[in-house]
This record gives sequence, structure tokens and C-alpha cells, in this order.
Amino acid sequence: MSLMDMTEAELTSFRDEAQKQYREFKARGLKLDMSRGKPCTEQLDMSLPMLDILHSGCNFIDSDGIDVRNYGNLTGITEAKVLFAELLGVRPSMIIVGGNSSLTLMYDSVARAMQFGVYGSKKPWNKCEKVKFLCPVPGYDRHFGITETFGVEMINVPMSSTGPDMDMVEKLVQSDPEIKGIWCVPMYSNPDGYTYSDETVRRFAALKPAAEDFRIFWDNAYCVHHLSDEPDTLLNIFDEAAKYGNEDMIFEFASTSKITFPGSGVAVLCASENNIAQISKLLGMQNISYDKLNQLRHVRYFGNADGVRKYMEKHKAILKPKFDLVIRILEEQTGGLDILTWNNPKGGYFISVNTLEGCAKRVAALCKEGGVTLTGAGATFPYGKDPEDRNIRLSPSYPSLSDLEKAMELFCICVKLASAEKLLGK
Amino acid sequence: MSLMDMTEAELTSFRDEAQKQYREFKARGLKLDMSRGKPCTEQLDMSLPMLDILHSGCNFIDSDGIDVRNYGNLTGITEAKVLFAELLGVRPSMIIVGGNSSLTLMYDSVARAMQFGVYGSKKPWNKCEKVKFLCPVPGYDRHFGITETFGVEMINVPMSSTGPDMDMVEKLVQSDPEIKGIWCVPMYSNPDGYTYSDETVRRFAALKPAAEDFRIFWDNAYCVHHLSDEPDTLLNIFDEAAKYGNEDMIFEFASTSKITFPGSGVAVLCASENNIAQISKLLGMQNISYDKLNQLRHVRYFGNADGVRKYMEKHKAILKPKFDLVIRILEEQTGGLDILTWNNPKGGYFISVNTLEGCAKRVAALCKEGGVTLTGAGATFPYGKDPEDRNIRLSPSYPSLSDLEKAMELFCICVKLASAEKLLGK
Repeated sequence: MSLMDMTEAELTSFRDEAQKQYREFKARGLKLDMSRGKPCTEQLDMSLPMLDILHSGCNFIDSDGIDVRNYGNLTGITEAKVLFAELLGVRPSMIIVGGNSSLTLMYDSVARAMQFGVYGSKKPWNKCEKVKFLCPVPGYDRHFGITETFGVEMINVPMSSTGPDMDMVEKLVQSDPEIKGIWCVPMYSNPDGYTYSDETVRRFAALKPAAEDFRIFWDNAYCVHHLSDEPDTLLNIFDEAAKYGNEDMIFEFASTSKITFPGSGVAVLCASENNIAQISKLLGMQNISYDKLNQLRHVRYFGNADGVRKYMEKHKAILKPKFDLVIRILEEQTGGLDILTWNNPKGGYFISVNTLEGCAKRVAALCKEGGVTLTGAGATFPYGKDPEDRNIRLSPSYPSLSDLEKAMELFCICVKLASAEKLLGK
Repeated sequence: MSLMDMTEAELTSFRDEAQKQYREFKARGLKLDMSRGKPCTEQLDMSLPMLDILHSGCNFIDSDGIDVRNYGNLTGITEAKVLFAELLGVRPSMIIVGGNSSLTLMYDSVARAMQFGVYGSKKPWNKCEKVKFLCPVPGYDRHFGITETFGVEMINVPMSSTGPDMDMVEKLVQSDPEIKGIWCVPMYSNPDGYTYSDETVRRFAALKPAAEDFRIFWDNAYCVHHLSDEPDTLLNIFDEAAKYGNEDMIFEFASTSKITFPGSGVAVLCASENNIAQISKLLGMQNISYDKLNQLRHVRYFGNADGVRKYMEKHKAILKPKFDLVIRILEEQTGGLDILTWNNPKGGYFISVNTLEGCAKRVAALCKEGGVTLTGAGATFPYGKDPEDRNIRLSPSYPSLSDLEKAMELFCICVKLASAEKLLGK
């Protein structure tokens, strides 16, 4: 029965029951952290053979005849560029194989733009009176953290199952030269798990920005992170952009953090040759070379892009039951109550739920007190401010199935309690 | 016989002989790159067993009980902090164990200071009308490259065997609030191989800068890179600075690039807890965690700071004969001619030579044409401008002994030729 149809007496009884369940749950003393999209131990164990790939008896000469153990090759070894180019469907000359973190590549890209500008800038962004970024919401807190740190004004753009509201994106980008960028997670978006439709990608590729140095930050973090046998597909934005002479407008990012080892993977920046040339020159001031041993380790482990894609099937086998469990419990516990909505993603690392307006913070606080730490309510919005206080990001990857079951049980109790409280006005 | 004492006829004959030798040498078609301080293959081979340290059967839980294969621990694993703290004689709380490159830590430190300021800044350095750095010369070209890139005005300070001219440093730093920093390689300086005297370190520690946010960039790149059985010793600048309440004034850097694998080592930033807190907050926007597997690999390989120090004995055994060879040939070929001076360093990676005024560029050009690429003349000075055109940095580490002998033979011929040309006025 929908809570909307309940009398005050029924609601009171519903709330009292939820309160009782909550007290009982709390007494069990659970302690669980579901705040971040961390791979689980089983996933990490899966990648252990990669650590045997390079050993003291190896050959360390790469396909260019370079000893990867020494200085040099700032933008990465050729065979790693070839692998990632194949994976992303671009030319190897568009790839910089970086260090261990795509977040660093993104932060550094913003930092460079602020200090020096990007290819085609008339002046550094720091010298502009104001710099604004569009932020599809809900989105990734660490993206918003970067732009907030640099004093960039962030403008919310609503997400739907086809991607950001493109009418709004076009209108703003094409009219306001202070808008210099947009954060996108085009495939299995964080947190919704939506993949941008072909039309959305085409409209991005065809943008005519008012700013001469506008950049789409295309964080393709989950490009091979499928959870379904019928995965989403994403149009190649560079192919589309080429049709409009817009290849310089895109910075794409990816990494193996959630393929091999988080923090010990390999990250890539993908951009037009014009951008790569401008970036490489500044990168040469910041670094002599990234960890080429780790690049070679990855290439020899996977062989090629297909090797990566096949490998991801094993991740799917570990993660899918967890996502299925969450969806099942959400349905069982809150289905028909009209107090929670969610998306059932075909990939990525998150399930995004929306409570009744004004309930998300309360749910997160109740969960925390009950022993389960969620991503902070509001974190999926710029400045940590969810205007409707509705969105919560669930991260099912890390806990075991049995822990996850308990956590979701608590979560649903908290949603029921907070919703009833809200409807009762207290 | 000194070239200064030669008659024009003697000089002409000397030059003709050098020219003949040069032509003969060129005909041999040698191709050698001595431009950078790269470890040689023998040194890299020495570190190969490190690649067997972590394997699929390992335990990956660190001393804090953390699985190093997953996200987290932004500032490094505790056992790595402990090792580097011991090596540098500081508290572990003063250490950030970074990625693979101390150059990146330095660039990022300047970039953060420009954009956000440092601990104690009244405003970001970008908001200051002018920012100046003192640059002891000759010095490290990549240091100067960073400050040049950020538009920092660089002021030359002469080096001597005890370190930078401290009268000049004190006078400038204590009177000019636009001077925000100084680049130092305090031990086995690049390129001279000088180690700062105790008095120099004490005077640095006691500075009373006019700028409230002045920083000493203390690049301790060669802290354990001895070439002599009676190595230089360097006073601990943090111990001294503590006596004057000046611990916040120092950013120290080091790395294992020339201990294990260049590009695949571990770098550290060492600073007061006040600085570490300010830096960590911004670092948390740029990264989730560095490569903790590589940190653990290093710690398990070396055990502790003494393990590193003993390990460096093996590097010494490989490098010392190369440095001895260079010094021997310089003496044999140019001794008594009064056309070249050099320092015989007790550690580090370079031998710095000074030609007659106005000859360094000519010598480097002759060498290049003869088949040996040196570090570009001028590179050891800000903006690539050696005001006297005298300094050349020799990097003996990479070539084999027999290649090095040939290269030095050519080098001495070029010095003779260029010197005679100069004295003959053509």
C-alpha cells in the first residue's frame, strides 16, 4: 500500500513498526562502510597473477627497443598507447598513458587550464573574470570537488536516462562564454548508471560553444564495466566530433583502477593531437616519465583490448549478484510504498536511489547511527547541496553478499522510518 | 704548458693538432648520448630482484592492517613513511610518500603555491604582482624549467664549494618580499657535486624572510648517492630550523629514482605537519591514493633505511670507476693547460666543468658534431643563459667505461680546439 494513501493512524503504526525494527537492528552492532565504489577482495584476488608478469628474468625492452626500466618516454610506451587506443576507438597518437590515477589527470587538466589555458585559449582561465562548468546532476563528487577547489562556478544540469538535458546544455554552452567545461560520465554514469544515448553524444559532438576553449571532460571510467549480458553501447564521441571539426573540444579519461588494482593501475588521457602537443609540453616540466614498468605489466597481462574486455566478464560474475541483491531487496522492502525510486543499471559501480523530498540526509544519518556508512547525502551534487535532498548513492561492490544483505535491510528500514516521519510532519 | 703562455705560433700549432685529432675522431662515427644523469643498465640489473618481491602468493596487508591493493591512504602507507623518515632524519608525520617522481612533487608544490598559496600565505602567489626565486648557479635545468613555466623571475646566486653565496641569499631573502623561494640541491649538488657546509645549512635554517610564505625547495636527490668511502655529510635542516621556529619554511624532496628504477621508483615530500596538512587537503582533490603496491615493494625490498644505505654501496661500485675515469682523462688531457677546471665530487651524478669564458657552447657543438651529445651548454643556468658561457655538465653514469673513455677523449679534444680558437681570436 502506498504511504500516500495511508491515514494518519496507519502511518503512525507504520512508523512505529519501522522504529522497532530500527532499534532491533541497531542492537546487532553492525559496522559497514558502503561509502565508496571500492572493488572487493575477490576482485583484487582475481588480478593477482598480474603481479607475476614482470620478474627478474624478464625482457624489459619494449616494442620501440626502449628499456622501460630507465627514464624517458614521457607520454607512455607505444604498446600501451596502442592497447588503450584500441579500447577507446581512437588513434594511438591521441593517448597519453599517465600514472596511477585518472582523477589526477583530470585535476591536472583543470589546473593547467587555469594557469596556462588549453590549446586554443586566448588566455589562461585564471585570467577570466569568471569560469563556469556545467555539472550534470546527480554526478561524481570528486569531479565537483576539483572545480570547487579552483573556484569554478558550477551549474546543475538535470540528468535523465538518455544523459544530461541537452536543450539546456546547448543553450548555455552556446550563449555563455564563461562556461568553459562540462563534467560527463557518459557510460554507466556515476551514480545513476545511465549511458548517454546516440543522440546525446551527437549533440555533444556538434556543440558550438561561445567560449573558444570549451572542453568536454569525458570521464569514461566505466567503459568496459558491464553488469549485463546485453550491455549498453556508447557512441564514439571523437568519431562524431570529427564530422564537425570539434575533435579539439574533448578530453577523455579512463583507467584500469577498477580493472586491475585501484591506486596501482594505469590511467589514460585521450585527446586530439593538438591538445596532446600542448599538454605534453607542460607535462615535460612536471615529469620525466610515468611508471613504464607498470604500463608494460598491464600490456603483457592483457595482450590487447579484447583481453581487457574478456577479463571484465570475471568482474561481472562477481559484481552482478551484488547488484541483483540490492535491487531485489529494494523491490521487496519498498515496492508499492511510493517512497523510493531507483535505476537498475547495466554497468558501472553504483545504484542511485531517490527518496521522498527532504529525506535523504535523514536516511543517511539513520543508517550511520545504525552502523552502515553511505556516501554522504548531497555528495552527488555540486557544493554537496542536493536541492531536493532526495538522492543517495549506493555502492554495492565492496561488501560481501551477506553484509550487503544486512546493510540493505537496514537501509530499507531507514527509508521507511524517514518517509513516515516526513509524511507525519515530524 | 699553459695556453696562456704560448706564442701565437705555438697556439696555432696546438689548434692545428687539435683540429687534426678532431677530424680523425669524427671519422670513427661514434654515437653517444651523455646528456642526462641516467643510471646504466648494470645498475638497473642490480635492482631486478625487487620485481620478485611482490607476487601472487604475497600478503598484501600492511602494518596498519590495510589491504594495499585497494583505494585509500592518500599520503602513503605507514611503513614507507617510517623508512623515508628514518632515511631523512625526520618524523613520519612529516612524510608524504608520493608517486614515481620527485619532479612531479616539486612542480605540483609550485603549482599549488601559485594557485592556492602555501601554509601561511596571505594570498596565492598568482595574486602577487611578481614572484621571484633564487637560483644557485650552476644548477638543475628542470628546477629552472618549473619556475620559468610559471612565470617566476629567477635570480642567479653563485655557488661555491660550501653552497650558495649566503651573504647574498640572506640579503635578498630578508629584504625582498617578492622572493618566495629558492632551489637547493644541498648534497652533491647538480651539477657541481658540492655539499652545503654546516654553516650554510644553519644560515638557511635561520633565515628571516621578508615574505611570510617563503619556501626553501630542498631537493635532497642525492642524499645516499655517495661515490667515496669518506662521503660528505649534510646537516639536518629540519633540526636546525626547529631552533628558530622555521620548520614551516622547508619543502624537502627525495626519491628512489636513482636507487631502484627511474620512473618506477617512489618519491617523497617532507615538510612540517602544518605544511603536510595544507598540502594533503589539496592532494585529496587530485588523487585517491598513490601506488601503494610499489611502496610496499620498496619497503619489503630494503627493510629499513640502513638497507637502502648498504644497497647504495653497490651503486658506488659501479659508478666510481666511471667518475675516476673522467677525472683521470681530464687531468691527463687538459692538466697544466689552464683551459678547464672541474670539481671531483664525492657523490651525486655529475662532474661540472668550466671552460675558458665563451667556450662552453662551442665545445658542446663540437662534441655533438663529433658524435657525443652533452647536456646543452647553458642548461645549468636559468633561462638557459650562462652569462660567461663556461659551464658544462658531464654525466658519466650511463655509458660503458669504454664508451666513456672515447667520449672523454673527444671532449678533451673539443676543449683544446675551442680554447685555442678563442685565444687566437677565431
